[in-house]
Amino acid sequence: MDKIDNLTEYFSKFPGIGTRQAKRFVYFLLTRNNGYLNELSDLIQELKKDIKVCESCCRFYTPNNSSNNPNLCNICINKNRDRNILMVVAKDTDLTNIERVGNYNGMYFVLGGFVSVLEKYPKQKIKIEKLLNIIQKRMENKELKEIILALSLNPDGENTMEYVSDILKPLVEKHKLKISTLGRGLSTGTELEYLDNNTFENAFKNRV
Amino acid sequence: MDKIDNLTEYFSKFPGIGTRQAKRFVYFLLTRNNGYLNELSDLIQELKKDIKVCESCCRFYTPNNSSNNPNLCNICINKNRDRNILMVVAKDTDLTNIERVGNYNGMYFVLGGFVSVLEKYPKQKIKIEKLLNIIQKRMENKELKEIILALSLNPDGENTMEYVSDILKPLVEKHKLKISTLGRGLSTGTELEYLDNNTFENAFKNRV
Amino acid sequence: MDKIDNLTEYFSKFPGIGTRQAKRFVYFLLTRNNGYLNELSDLIQELKKDIKVCESCCRFYTPNNSSNNPNLCNICINKNRDRNILMVVAKDTDLTNIERVGNYNGMYFVLGGFVSVLEKYPKQKIKIEKLLNIIQKRMENKELKEIILALSLNPDGENTMEYVSDILKPLVEKHKLKISTLGRGLSTGTELEYLDNNTFENAFKNRV
Amino acid sequence: MDKIDNLTEYFSKFPGIGTRQAKRFVYFLLTRNNGYLNELSDLIQELKKDIKVCESCCRFYTPNNSSNNPNLCNICINKNRDRNILMVVAKDTDLTNIERVGNYNGMYFVLGGFVSVLEKYPKQKIKIEKLLNIIQKRMENKELKEIILALSLNPDGENTMEYVSDILKPLVEKHKLKISTLGRGLSTGTELEYLDNNTFENAFKNRV
Repeated sequence: MDKIDNLTEYFSKFPGIGTRQAKRFVYFLLTRNNGYLNELSDLIQELKKDIKVCESCCRFYTPNNSSNNPNLCNICINKNRDRNILMVVAKDTDLTNIERVGNYNGMYFVLGGFVSVLEKYPKQKIKIEKLLNIIQKRMENKELKEIILALSLNPDGENTMEYVSDILKPLVEKHKLKISTLGRGLSTGTELEYLDNNTFENAFKNRV
Repeated sequence: MDKIDNLTEYFSKFPGIGTRQAKRFVYFLLTRNNGYLNELSDLIQELKKDIKVCESCCRFYTPNNSSNNPNLCNICINKNRDRNILMVVAKDTDLTNIERVGNYNGMYFVLGGFVSVLEKYPKQKIKIEKLLNIIQKRMENKELKEIILALSLNPDGENTMEYVSDILKPLVEKHKLKISTLGRGLSTGTELEYLDNNTFENAFKNRV
Repeated sequence: MDKIDNLTEYFSKFPGIGTRQAKRFVYFLLTRNNGYLNELSDLIQELKKDIKVCESCCRFYTPNNSSNNPNLCNICINKNRDRNILMVVAKDTDLTNIERVGNYNGMYFVLGGFVSVLEKYPKQKIKIEKLLNIIQKRMENKELKEIILALSLNPDGENTMEYVSDILKPLVEKHKLKISTLGRGLSTGTELEYLDNNTFENAFKNRV
Repeated sequence: MDKIDNLTEYFSKFPGIGTRQAKRFVYFLLTRNNGYLNELSDLIQELKKDIKVCESCCRFYTPNNSSNNPNLCNICINKNRDRNILMVVAKDTDLTNIERVGNYNGMYFVLGGFVSVLEKYPKQKIKIEKLLNIIQKRMENKELKEIILALSLNPDGENTMEYVSDILKPLVEKHKLKISTLGRGLSTGTELEYLDNNTFENAFKNRV
């Protein structure tokens, strides 16, 4: 196969990219100088060497060599964050968005995906075992009081929430942990005229 | 002016309709038979004779001649609805949507519009005087415990909520009424990755 | 049925309008004054009395009482237009658009619709008999040299073109009329990168 | 800077890609295996070694080692293509699209860009000097009869067409070359009701 087609095929696997845009990426790269291509190539090559998975929250992070604990990300290592609260999210981009918008000061855990409604092997889809270990360990240090399941309000997100809830149940009951989900109701831009059933019900129940 | 252009101009005033679609409406009508046109014409002609504004909730309704109280709509006349709770909405379409989706069983009040941020004469934009009268009257009958301000989460809606809140304040305090707004948080379809500041904050605060 | 629902149903039959927007039309009308509603109602009521179908081009038009020939529209009555050329279009809105954009100075004929590919009774869908009569009459007056089939380049338009072509064939051959279609090629905004097969072929063939 | 942010920045320079999607690309790569990353990295690294610019048409191509003339692409080397006709396009993707849709059998020249209306240094934006050389050389071999300027019908495309036309004029006149542009008119999907001025005029003039 032609190298252009070959690279096009690689780019067309990128999330949200079709063959046409993939080809446009290749022609874009062909007009860049060698320095640009080399740097991009090196960044991709070294990506997994330079970036690790945090041992505590499972997110991807760039280790800081001067850190005392190079296996933990900068959030997990931060003494000022509240260890009593653990927010479980599906993806790294969810975590980075919450860090960007919120003033959340607790800890995180990144499941690394979703459990779809028809999924046969949910344990292989998300890091549920690892989450159980983390919670166990935190409990030994008496560090944890609340787990927040912060997942998107779509079918995959709701199913994952249910799955994780069920698995955590014995642990939660044993240690009298609080398990919570993000509040539901009107979100920015919601118009009453188009409100769906479920959102109205929650907005009504959670009125303040 | 040409009759086609004349009618086109009328239709182009309809909400969301531009000149092109307005003209298409006219040509569509030209291909209908006379019966259709006569009925449509009559319905428009008689619209305000056939439809009244409810004296209690201010919504538009078709009076029922056999009713004991022809000045009230079927919701306001319904003995099974909970008179202790009054939901204030901006528009008739908000009310009909809530009736469609929800199992809300209280009363309503339709403000008839919004108060924009820069509005100079808010009293002329919404039926705030009427709302005060209704609340006063309900209090005399000891019928009211809670007022829910159910407005869209956009700038006009939020400003209207604030305006109405301020005006109701003395009455609310005097009678120890509860005043509430619909809960905020994740609504159906919200993805964590795109959550805005304000929605996250509310969803976090209202977690359950 | 409720009058609001009744009128909503009428509006929801309008081209491109769903139930929700139809209901918004009704509430919009409810907030207009009586003068507005009466005028709108009258315009609809009188629409077909005030507007006629031109005997020559079959388009809808508002008759001019002072005209010598009240059965013809202002285009067909215009002595300055070129009677040797007849442009056949599908809809009134096509004609008005061509009048708006073009400097076309010939005559028109409005078919009043399309013949879909699977249509069983094409003669009932478009005014093909009337078109044949018009052409015949023009030929008697030696007024016609060219017929342009100006239809949209979509499946219905192309099928209608083919159907009309076939029917006109004997007449066209007998009278040595020229029959033409609008040129094909790049239209404003066309990008080479997304050009389809058919358009490229025509653009290449018709290069100038 | 963090490596994730660094690579995100690279991807956000890709055509049509914003920061959010760029970041999603990075997290996507983080979940791939090393084999995938190494291959992608190598393809990018070697891109410009493996792909050359054709000496004749200036497009990017993968050289074929067994070719007699490794400096020419497979189109320019193909003896069956018609050397009398040269199609000038703006971008490689235009050429590949025409190869995909058309049965064009002539030669190409890729300008490598557009000349915007306000461009001060047009000679640096497109390979106009190279185009002049190629034409000159072809003329010496008496190989060329027609040059087709095949550019998109948008402001940049039309301005580039005009610019190239002007520059080619002396050469074209001297050698009695034909210079043409792609035909204009209705393209697939064009609806008469929305036809613009310019397209109607061309479609009318080029009627067949």
